[in-house]
Amino acid sequence: MTLKSFVEVQPDSHFPIQNLPYGVFRPESGSTARPGVAIGDYVLDLSVITRAGLFDGLILKGSDCFLQPNLNKFLAMGRPAWKEARATLQKLLAASEPTLRDNATLRQKALVPVEKVEMLLPAVIGDYTDFFASMHHAKNCGLIFRGPQNPINPNWFHLPIAYHGRASSIVISGTDIIRPRGQGHPTANSGPYFGPSLKLDFELEMAAIVGPGNELGRPVDVNEAADHIFGLVLMNDWSARDIQAWEYVPLGPFLGKSFGTTISPWIVTLDALEQFACDAGKQDPPPLPYLAEKTSKNYDISLEVEIKPAGNEDSCVVTRSNFKHLYWTVTQQLAHHTINGCNLRPGDLLGTGTISGPEPDSYGCLLELTWNGQKPLSLNGTARKFLEDGDEVIFTGFCKGDGFLVGFGKCSGKIVPSPR
Amino acid sequence: MTLKSFVEVQPDSHFPIQNLPYGVFRPESGSTARPGVAIGDYVLDLSVITRAGLFDGLILKGSDCFLQPNLNKFLAMGRPAWKEARATLQKLLAASEPTLRDNATLRQKALVPVEKVEMLLPAVIGDYTDFFASMHHAKNCGLIFRGPQNPINPNWFHLPIAYHGRASSIVISGTDIIRPRGQGHPTANSGPYFGPSLKLDFELEMAAIVGPGNELGRPVDVNEAADHIFGLVLMNDWSARDIQAWEYVPLGPFLGKSFGTTISPWIVTLDALEQFACDAGKQDPPPLPYLAEKTSKNYDISLEVEIKPAGNEDSCVVTRSNFKHLYWTVTQQLAHHTINGCNLRPGDLLGTGTISGPEPDSYGCLLELTWNGQKPLSLNGTARKFLEDGDEVIFTGFCKGDGFLVGFGKCSGKIVPSPR
Ligand SMILES: [Ca+2]
Ligand SMILES: [Ca+2]
Ligand SMILES: [Mg+2]
Ligand SMILES: [Mg+2]
Ligand code: NI
Repeated sequence: MTLKSFVEVQPDSHFPIQNLPYGVFRPESGSTARPGVAIGDYVLDLSVITRAGLFDGLILKGSDCFLQPNLNKFLAMGRPAWKEARATLQKLLAASEPTLRDNATLRQKALVPVEKVEMLLPAVIGDYTDFFASMHHAKNCGLIFRGPQNPINPNWFHLPIAYHGRASSIVISGTDIIRPRGQGHPTANSGPYFGPSLKLDFELEMAAIVGPGNELGRPVDVNEAADHIFGLVLMNDWSARDIQAWEYVPLGPFLGKSFGTTISPWIVTLDALEQFACDAGKQDPPPLPYLAEKTSKNYDISLEVEIKPAGNEDSCVVTRSNFKHLYWTVTQQLAHHTINGCNLRPGDLLGTGTISGPEPDSYGCLLELTWNGQKPLSLNGTARKFLEDGDEVIFTGFCKGDGFLVGFGKCSGKIVPSPR
Repeated sequence: MTLKSFVEVQPDSHFPIQNLPYGVFRPESGSTARPGVAIGDYVLDLSVITRAGLFDGLILKGSDCFLQPNLNKFLAMGRPAWKEARATLQKLLAASEPTLRDNATLRQKALVPVEKVEMLLPAVIGDYTDFFASMHHAKNCGLIFRGPQNPINPNWFHLPIAYHGRASSIVISGTDIIRPRGQGHPTANSGPYFGPSLKLDFELEMAAIVGPGNELGRPVDVNEAADHIFGLVLMNDWSARDIQAWEYVPLGPFLGKSFGTTISPWIVTLDALEQFACDAGKQDPPPLPYLAEKTSKNYDISLEVEIKPAGNEDSCVVTRSNFKHLYWTVTQQLAHHTINGCNLRPGDLLGTGTISGPEPDSYGCLLELTWNGQKPLSLNGTARKFLEDGDEVIFTGFCKGDGFLVGFGKCSGKIVPSPR
């Protein structure tokens, strides 16, 4: 029998009692930030649950981790605390449990309608890393920029390639994205282009939120890496392809990325995703021992991107992909990140890289979907090579359970013009 | 007449009253962290000066910025606060000023012998960026890795190239550096090398500490960029050349750098450096308007690197360079960083990149000094291609004034073996 909550949850909701993703919110503007979990169309205020003494397990009893304005303290506590919190909350919200269900005053305080709240970044993100873990994406980028000989670099199959991203410009879903200005390639007989980016793109990604992390000099074993990942969010790694193409040799992406990165507000835990785990597939060549996993997992998460042009009523689906297309698993990514001794801290963000599938309608960015502008998409009849001012880009992601969804909600952002 | 302090300062001290660099320290282990300024062989405890009510200027009176465990709050206050603090402290420490000089109790509390204190990172560093601003370094790297045709990429002369670095692994001078493990290039008929780095290097750099910063979407004008830089530190961007060479295409340096970056504890302010400003030299081609400065400044800062092998009494000077060799100024670096709207936050660190001069004995890393190991250096008779376990690398930097130095102290770190 399927677990049910006393809180009404529509069958197409992303947030049934099987999910219980964590976020940080203000119940009304001006009030203090606090952690919550999503349940149906409500947010359960964990500061209220803490003050009511309802976290009564061995680890969380008396803890102030949910009285913080971010999740970092809870993230640092690790999987035993995460499991205890999940068990406590699934019990508290269950249809059969009277504690909260039958206490109208407490219920009124603890359950806030989601349409009233302001969502914030769930954690202080000390460092943000972006990987490049989809083979289809790596191959398409190689074909577009370097041609058909060896589109994928030889190192790619031996290690999960990544770069350090910019932490300061990570924003929460719903934040407008200002079109960046910058330099592009010179044209014949003139200097570099300078002005608003002419090739603004999205990148369909997901990102892991790091839990306890590790001390400097102490790598995390790949078979213990899952205990360092609290959960996943949707991530849009906005990219200015013209700025990127001109600046990135030899030190990698910089201003072509650092103007903004959007994440979804709800962290879906690995514990909630566990029932959607699937085999990650064989890697050839076999990875070096420090990347060899006893069990190599992906997750079956359906992903979709829509674009809603300015003034349009309707949005258009431009791609459908799936998290399971990743070649390198998130646990391999994390273990590789630490093999040199690099320390991860609670709240760090590890982006997967663009999640492209094998088919053209599953590519994860406009660079691939329009083949660098050569094959424009049609959005309700208007052509689109790259993003235009006023375009809203909306990601969704969910796993399909037996009679319920475990979803991520939305990750969206609208392009606004460059400052003059 | 030269300004003098009642605190005795040796003529070769880096910390006369003309300098007054800021750091964060614990007077004894276990005590709380607090800001201080260096004066001769003492640290002036700014929390004591605050509590004694001696910051009595318009901006700092009543402020708790020096009661914090880091400098971020003071950094955010901007140049008017920085100038007021400097004026207050230069007056308070002057030979002619009785307030502190003649109050033995207060003096005892406020002036802590530097050999007793533990120095900490001066600020919470939200993001760390590393530039590539020395033309000699860019050229040598190009010659070594790509050969004599076009050793410098065409983009290099149009923009200050940079990459995002790892903030979590920035450590204070004196912290041991654990030799990183990782992958290197495959050799014929075998997979990639895996093990302790065989090409561990230092990079002689300096770094700017960001002041107020800017909001997302609001670039900083290059002619106002100096007001966003509090001061400079020495920085060693430790680099594992074998890991770097194998991983860096196409997304730039990652694990070859992120195992550790060392900074010196004392931030020398731009106000103290102003009298050592020099012309930055003509840029050809002329920079785009957003990088064109009314006055383009470098600073005449002598830099030196010594290596002290394990068991040796003496260290060997391996290079002498100067900050003024930079092609792109720190203000151009900062303005470029924000042109796409990227936000800088107080305490952010902007590394200059390796500061190589034109002559072989002024190159800023072993990669260049030994030409990728082809021409070993002699250290007191032993050959050195790259760093060995037990090597201590010591940077110093100073400006020569009329009868005094304005210096940075040391930035040092010792290599310890990889974990087994
Ligand atoms: Ca990306
Ligand atoms: Ca560097
Ligand atoms: Mg981004
Ligand atoms: Mg480094
Ligand atoms: Ni960072």
